[in-house]
Amino acid sequence: MREELFADRVQPDTPSRLEGLFPQMDFDDAITFTAGSPAEDLFPKEAMQQAYLDAIAAEGAHTFQYHTISGPEELRSRLAVRAQQKMAIEGVDADNVMLTAGGQQGIDLIAKLMLNKGDGLVVEAPTYVGALSSFDMYEPTYYEVQLESDGMDVDQLEETLKAHNNIKLVYTVADFHNPGGVTMSVEKRKRLVELANEYDFMILEDTPYRDLRYVGESLPSIKHFDTEDRVIFLSSFSKILMPTLRLGWMVAPKAVIKQLYKLKEAADLEVPNITASAVNQFLAKNDLDKHIEGLIKAYSGKRQAMFDALAKEMPEGVEATCPEGGFFTWVTVPDFINTTDLLYDVVTPKAHIAYVPSKNFYAFKDHTNGMRINFTGLTPDQIADGMHRLGGVLKEEMSKASLKTAQ
Amino acid sequence: MREELFADRVQPDTPSRLEGLFPQMDFDDAITFTAGSPAEDLFPKEAMQQAYLDAIAAEGAHTFQYHTISGPEELRSRLAVRAQQKMAIEGVDADNVMLTAGGQQGIDLIAKLMLNKGDGLVVEAPTYVGALSSFDMYEPTYYEVQLESDGMDVDQLEETLKAHNNIKLVYTVADFHNPGGVTMSVEKRKRLVELANEYDFMILEDTPYRDLRYVGESLPSIKHFDTEDRVIFLSSFSKILMPTLRLGWMVAPKAVIKQLYKLKEAADLEVPNITASAVNQFLAKNDLDKHIEGLIKAYSGKRQAMFDALAKEMPEGVEATCPEGGFFTWVTVPDFINTTDLLYDVVTPKAHIAYVPSKNFYAFKDHTNGMRINFTGLTPDQIADGMHRLGGVLKEEMSKASLKTAQ
Repeated sequence: MREELFADRVQPDTPSRLEGLFPQMDFDDAITFTAGSPAEDLFPKEAMQQAYLDAIAAEGAHTFQYHTISGPEELRSRLAVRAQQKMAIEGVDADNVMLTAGGQQGIDLIAKLMLNKGDGLVVEAPTYVGALSSFDMYEPTYYEVQLESDGMDVDQLEETLKAHNNIKLVYTVADFHNPGGVTMSVEKRKRLVELANEYDFMILEDTPYRDLRYVGESLPSIKHFDTEDRVIFLSSFSKILMPTLRLGWMVAPKAVIKQLYKLKEAADLEVPNITASAVNQFLAKNDLDKHIEGLIKAYSGKRQAMFDALAKEMPEGVEATCPEGGFFTWVTVPDFINTTDLLYDVVTPKAHIAYVPSKNFYAFKDHTNGMRINFTGLTPDQIADGMHRLGGVLKEEMSKASLKTAQ
Repeated sequence: MREELFADRVQPDTPSRLEGLFPQMDFDDAITFTAGSPAEDLFPKEAMQQAYLDAIAAEGAHTFQYHTISGPEELRSRLAVRAQQKMAIEGVDADNVMLTAGGQQGIDLIAKLMLNKGDGLVVEAPTYVGALSSFDMYEPTYYEVQLESDGMDVDQLEETLKAHNNIKLVYTVADFHNPGGVTMSVEKRKRLVELANEYDFMILEDTPYRDLRYVGESLPSIKHFDTEDRVIFLSSFSKILMPTLRLGWMVAPKAVIKQLYKLKEAADLEVPNITASAVNQFLAKNDLDKHIEGLIKAYSGKRQAMFDALAKEMPEGVEATCPEGGFFTWVTVPDFINTTDLLYDVVTPKAHIAYVPSKNFYAFKDHTNGMRINFTGLTPDQIADGMHRLGGVLKEEMSKASLKTAQ
C-alpha cells in the first residue's frame, strides 16, 4: 500500500482533529474536564434495558432483520410532535424527520449533500470539532465568523457573504454552544434566516444540548423562523439519553430528506432497527421530559459549582462564559499563554487535570489562548479541586510573564 | 431550498440504485425472490437477546457511554483469529481488524479513502448494487470487467489496466458472488494480486457470503495471497448472524486502518458499544461455527429446491448459475427479453412474483436480460411454485417472440 493511492481528502500525516483531545492520565488524583460525555450515573439503565426487551418482544425475530431506510414511523411521529412542542417547529410530520447514526452522521450527510470541493462553508469561531472533522472530508473553503456572547457575529457574516459568492452552508450550534457555552439571541436567529434568504444558502442548526437549559426561558429554534425551507434542524439522543444509541434525528424539508436517504443508504444502509425500536419503546413507556428534568437538576448543581470555583480560583485577566445550559464553559486566558503547550507541559503532568485547548475548535487551528471546560461529568468537589489546581497554574504562568515584562 | 445548492454527487432526479429493488406486492399468493435478507426463523433470537443482557451486565451503565473508535479489543482479537483460521489470512492481530456499520460502511469508507473524482475503479459486471451506490458518491470513472463462471475475467482486467493508468481500486465479490452466484478460482485470486502489484492498485475483497458454502471446499481468501498489503478483506455479521446488528469488519494493513479511523470518526464517531459488546458476548458463549452449520443445512435444501425447480421449469435458452454457496442464482434469458420491463409489465402484476432485474447490477445500467433470484428466503414449496410461474411467463414471452420471427 502506497500513500499515493489515497484520495486528496486523506492527509496521512495530519492527525485527526479529535486526536489527543482526551489525554489519558495515569494519576490517582486525575480530574478531566475534557469530556463531552453525559454523566453515566444518570443513564436510565433499567428502563433502556427493558426497552430493548420490549422491542424484541414486539417484533420477535423480525426485530433483527433488515428494515427500511426511514425507520419506524411511530418513532418519527413522536419526534415530529416533539419538534412542534419543544422546538417551535410548526407544520411538520413524520416524513420531515430523518433518523441518523448520531448527530455526527447528520452533519456528515448534510455536508455530503451540499459541498463540492472548494464550496464556501461558514463556521463559528470556535465551533464543534467533530463537525470540522466531517466537513474536512468534502474539502470546503472555510469562512470563520466570530462567536459573541449572544451567538455568531451576524454583521461579520454579512460582510463575508458580500465578499464571497460561493457560500452554500452556514453551520451553527445556537443553543449552549459547544465549545463556546453561549446561546444565539432571537434577533440573531431571525437575522440569520433573512440572510439565508437574501444570499441563498442553507443553515445547519445543530442542537444536541438544546433540552438541557438550567436557567432562563427556551428560545424558538432557528428552524422556527425558516420561511424558505433553508434550515435543517439536527438533534440527538446522545446527551439526553445515551451516546451508545448512536441515534440522531433531523427535521428537514421532505425534498432534502429524499436526497439524504440516498446518501445514508450508500453510507450504511439504515439505522439499526433494534436501536430505533428500543428508543421508540422507551419513549412510549417513559416520560422523556421527566428524565430530562432529572438531568437538569443534577447538571444545574454542577454548573453552579463551576461558576463558584471559577470566581474563586481564576486570576484577573482570565474570563469564562456563563452558559445557561449544555456541558461547557469557555475560558479565555491572556494571549501570551498557549493553552496547548500549557496543557502538555504543565497542566497534565503537574496539576493532573485536563481541558481541551482552543486550537482544536478553530477551522484553521490558529487560536491558542482558550480552553473548553466540561462541568457535567464531575462532582462539585472535583470541580472545586480541579479549578483550584488550574487557577494555581495560571497564576504562576501569569506572574512569570509579568516578571519577564518587569525585567 | 433550491436544488442548485446540492453538490454534484447528488443527482436529484436520478432514483437511488436501490429504489424499486424490492417491490411490494399486495397479493395473497405473492412470492418474492428479490431479498438479500437471511431467513428470520434461523436467527439465534434468544441467544442474542441474552448477549445484549450480558453486555449490559458486564459494563453496567458504562455500556451506554461513548467508547472508542476501535471498539472492544476482545472482539477484534476473536475476529483476527477467525481471519487466520477461516480465511487463511496469516500474521494479523486485533489491530488489523476494524469494525464498521455493516459491510456497507466498509465499502463506503474504503471508497472515501481511495477515490478522487474521476479516479479509475474496476467493478465486476454484474456487481453488488449497494457497492455501486457507495462508489457513485465519490464520482469515480467506472471500468467494468466481465464476470465469468470462475470469477472476473482477469485477462480483460489486464487489458483495462494497460489502457487506463488511473485505476486505483478493484472491487470484487469473490465468494458466491452477489448477484452472479459464481466463485473466483484460486488461479484468478493469485493473478489478481500479481496484477495489483504490477499495476499498483488496491483490491477490496467483499465476502459477506463466504461462510455459507453448501458444497465443495473453502478457497483461501484473496487476502491470503497478498504480498504487498494491497488487499482489504471485508466481512459482515449480517448474513451469518443478523442484519440489524449493522456490524461489519475488515482486515487491513494497520496504516490503512489508521486513516480509515479518521474517516469513520468523521462519519459517525464509532460503532455502538452495546452492539459490539453484545456480539462479543455472543461469540464468547455460543459456537458461531455450529450456528453457521445450521444455516448451511437449511440453505442447502433451499438451494437444491431451486436447482430442481430451474431444471424443471425453465425453457431452453434460459441459463442459471449453480452457486456453491451464498444467497443467489443469476438467470440469463434471451436478449430480446428486457427483464425490467418484464418484471413490471408481466411478472409482478400477473404471476405475483418478483426478482431483481439485471440493470441494477451494472455500473452503466445497460444490461437487460438477466435477473437475480434469491433462494434462501423461501420454502422449497414456494421456490417450486414461484419458478413454475416464472417458467410459464418466460415460455409465453419466448413463444410470442418466435411467432414474430416466424411471421
